[in-house]
Amino acid sequence: MTRWRRNESGNIAMSTPGYADDKVAVLARLKKIEGQVRGIHKMIDSDRYCIDVLQQISAATRALQGVALHLLDEHLTHCVVHAVESGGAEKDAKLREASAAIAQLVKS
Amino acid sequence: MTRWRRNESGNIAMSTPGYADDKVAVLARLKKIEGQVRGIHKMIDSDRYCIDVLQQISAATRALQGVALHLLDEHLTHCVVHAVESGGAEKDAKLREASAAIAQLVKS
Amino acid sequence: MTRWRRNESGNIAMSTPGYADDKVAVLARLKKIEGQVRGIHKMIDSDRYCIDVLQQISAATRALQGVALHLLDEHLTHCVVHAVESGGAEKDAKLREASAAIAQLVKS
Amino acid sequence: MTRWRRNESGNIAMSTPGYADDKVAVLARLKKIEGQVRGIHKMIDSDRYCIDVLQQISAATRALQGVALHLLDEHLTHCVVHAVESGGAEKDAKLREASAAIAQLVKS
Repeated sequence: MTRWRRNESGNIAMSTPGYADDKVAVLARLKKIEGQVRGIHKMIDSDRYCIDVLQQISAATRALQGVALHLLDEHLTHCVVHAVESGGAEKDAKLREASAAIAQLVKS
Repeated sequence: MTRWRRNESGNIAMSTPGYADDKVAVLARLKKIEGQVRGIHKMIDSDRYCIDVLQQISAATRALQGVALHLLDEHLTHCVVHAVESGGAEKDAKLREASAAIAQLVKS
Repeated sequence: MTRWRRNESGNIAMSTPGYADDKVAVLARLKKIEGQVRGIHKMIDSDRYCIDVLQQISAATRALQGVALHLLDEHLTHCVVHAVESGGAEKDAKLREASAAIAQLVKS
Repeated sequence: MTRWRRNESGNIAMSTPGYADDKVAVLARLKKIEGQVRGIHKMIDSDRYCIDVLQQISAATRALQGVALHLLDEHLTHCVVHAVESGGAEKDAKLREASAAIAQLVKS
């Protein structure tokens, strides 16, 4: 599978991101999370009980984390695999970058 | 400081939440997080690079976590303290509930 | 329940920690975690497969987190409650300290 | 670089783990963490203050997490890269396994 496309001006090649195949599903998950955050805003605005608000924040946090893990998975199986197969400096750079992203995700 | 108010029907007393004093600031933080999530949606929609999207998800996750820690802090210093000062069953219930909320936050 | 005792020299009063009542159980959990870490060391020494080692590290991390949540719970229900009941500067200091400990735990 | 060796009986080929090149350093980090856990045990045994114990648990947890991230990084750059270069079913299996390990680490 080629993971390259032409941009609007038609003359610069850009790689499609690893999540290209299920972009619609990822967008739907983000819309839902946006709604969750708006719901938390409403809860605060209506003086809802702290503990109930905290539960909704945990749910939104886990949902964001789920999207991040999904994107990372797609990134590994597409972008990183592509770089490994191409070899050279790109391979090392992509591996270092992926490790840094994993570390950031684990620590956040 | 009294942390009780009448509800709409006027005959049931409800406690105000622990975050009542800085509700405006909390609401502003949530509006900003909602904007961050909308920004992530836009990044996905424009096929932005996976790693860049992951960084923004980390930022939004940390921001949500920050709001949760703030609410928990306010909950401890207002609701839990109030329950401890009142004593009795309410005190034990509030402490158990706070511990459960902390555990959930640590694990999410 | 008095939560104070004399130290060795007999002239400085020290509070007993919140976990005093189930110290034996906490010590046993820590002994087990020490064994888990020693087991991970042995796995590395015998060139065991990375993914299997990672699973054992996750188990040890969760076990440490479990002890931390337990200590925090005991700290809230004993030390913090005691400080709230005593009131004054001690109350505010203990609440600030507990919130900082929760934040550290959530972020680690 | 070949990452295969003979086992004790000499007739089954086993891959060396991704961390083979800096095994000595990883073993030293684990020895240190074992000492940290033993130190926490001593703190509990001497009735040290809850908050001080919690700080040491956070330090040990972060140290374990650091070893996990290091092992994962070595696993990606050696085992996963090797599987991708070999291709076939092994490639897909190793990628799925790596993603599961990352998810476990993020959630623990």
